[in-house]
Amino acid sequence: MSIVYKADPVRGKRWQALLAGKAPERRLHLWPEYGDPAAVRYLVAWQPPEHVMACFPNLQVLFSTGAGVDQLDLDRIPAELPVVRMIDPGLTQGMVEYVVLAVLALQRDMPAYLSQQRAGVWQPLAQRPAARTRVGVMGVGELGRSVLERLACFGFACEGWNRSPKQMDGVPVSSGDQALDAFLARTDILICLLPLTPATRGLLNTTLFDQLPRGAAVVNVARGPQLVIDDLLAALDRGQLGGAVLDVVDPEPLPADHPLWTHPRVWLTPHVASATQPETALDALLANIERFEHGEPMQGEVDRSRGY
Amino acid sequence: MSIVYKADPVRGKRWQALLAGKAPERRLHLWPEYGDPAAVRYLVAWQPPEHVMACFPNLQVLFSTGAGVDQLDLDRIPAELPVVRMIDPGLTQGMVEYVVLAVLALQRDMPAYLSQQRAGVWQPLAQRPAARTRVGVMGVGELGRSVLERLACFGFACEGWNRSPKQMDGVPVSSGDQALDAFLARTDILICLLPLTPATRGLLNTTLFDQLPRGAAVVNVARGPQLVIDDLLAALDRGQLGGAVLDVVDPEPLPADHPLWTHPRVWLTPHVASATQPETALDALLANIERFEHGEPMQGEVDRSRGY
Repeated sequence: MSIVYKADPVRGKRWQALLAGKAPERRLHLWPEYGDPAAVRYLVAWQPPEHVMACFPNLQVLFSTGAGVDQLDLDRIPAELPVVRMIDPGLTQGMVEYVVLAVLALQRDMPAYLSQQRAGVWQPLAQRPAARTRVGVMGVGELGRSVLERLACFGFACEGWNRSPKQMDGVPVSSGDQALDAFLARTDILICLLPLTPATRGLLNTTLFDQLPRGAAVVNVARGPQLVIDDLLAALDRGQLGGAVLDVVDPEPLPADHPLWTHPRVWLTPHVASATQPETALDALLANIERFEHGEPMQGEVDRSRGY
Repeated sequence: MSIVYKADPVRGKRWQALLAGKAPERRLHLWPEYGDPAAVRYLVAWQPPEHVMACFPNLQVLFSTGAGVDQLDLDRIPAELPVVRMIDPGLTQGMVEYVVLAVLALQRDMPAYLSQQRAGVWQPLAQRPAARTRVGVMGVGELGRSVLERLACFGFACEGWNRSPKQMDGVPVSSGDQALDAFLARTDILICLLPLTPATRGLLNTTLFDQLPRGAAVVNVARGPQLVIDDLLAALDRGQLGGAVLDVVDPEPLPADHPLWTHPRVWLTPHVASATQPETALDALLANIERFEHGEPMQGEVDRSRGY
């Protein structure tokens, strides 16, 4: 029995080499090569092939190479095939690094300092201390939790918001639609780490921006379609928002002539906040396969009813 | 008996208001007002007045409002007058925030992403994981130690270098001139937090830059005269250095037409990395006055022989 990897081929080679060292008894094929299709039990993919069960009739689990599964059309994947999100410590670490960088830059108004720099202006700006900077994270899953824990080390006034109730030591987490307005009203820097679902598509729009305190900043490191770019630009230009750091946009890549590129209060990176790291992700995959083979629940298994 | 504050008058008002709440039995005058000069026991100053002992004949301690005392001409201050550097948790926190921001930005090559952004280019860049990014801090005093501890949380390969031997839990610290070459050779991101002394003036120059691995980056958050700007620009332009984040330069402010302003691989801020915070600094001052009045050693007392 074998595993098929169907995603970036360069990374695939790395997965293959690592597997040979860590679990030589398992076989990893790199798509489009897959040997005997009937022997394929596990598929590790960004996108499965069309008609996945016709392709691999004995497939038992579909593992996403990404932290999300919004790239998958779950309606076209048989309900009895478990789908698993990637929970990879390497991916989590990259996300923590990116969000802490974004929050420290926004707290200090680094975009304004860099504009001043280009203009040759030496001018200190007022800065709010961390303890009086309220950072709110929407989506308290694996990534959101890790981001909040690290930001709390810096003394930021941290809070989480999640669709369903969650508990964290030392960081308050509110939940549900009825708690969202109050959460937004006390958030100076908003981080979006929500999964992309019909409920979160377009959620970061004028209505939401207007619920934040005037001059608040927004960081989107989740999925591009969650944020309405025109609403963001309008909110920045009327001063309702003071800044934005975006790693994801819709569409990607952003067209070269889009006004977002040159807005002085926006930092834009090309969807690089974090990537699955083969070294740590392979360990996570192997641990999940072990769990599956022992009849135990896997980490990151998708609940089809909620879509993540 | 009284305290005189001689530095930024706006901050002085804040010190005065805080003292009234915390230690109403003590009197804080704001220079140029000082009441009975013979009653002045403690001077809290960025710069003392000329002929300080003629001005305040019963002065017992000179407290610097800054983390350094390089702004003082120690030769003109009587040897028997204790001089104390500011060790303020608020100042330390700001420095940790700034340096972590700088290191995360350099690790990810954020200056290159922002150049790409201005050009409308969507192009992911290679990124080295934290564990393989070696961050070296020169100067393991109060600030250097706190910076290293926080960077270690992110999994960076951290190391300190200090003139005299120092110990840290979990972070190796080498010391002395003979260890400097090897320390530099294994440092990808170099942070300068040294005091400004004759030995450190001009230390960050071509010779030192050439000892770093090719493509290394430099962060100066100590004092401007420690870094030779022309050497830095040359090292950046020939690729020996990959980037620099500078909060201090010589002179300050930098002339508006200086080429450093517009170098695409330099982030420059106007000496704002961190400032003494009246709230926390007043507590540190009062604790030191208590120590002095009980005949105990003060925190941050300057050793005249080494100059800090």
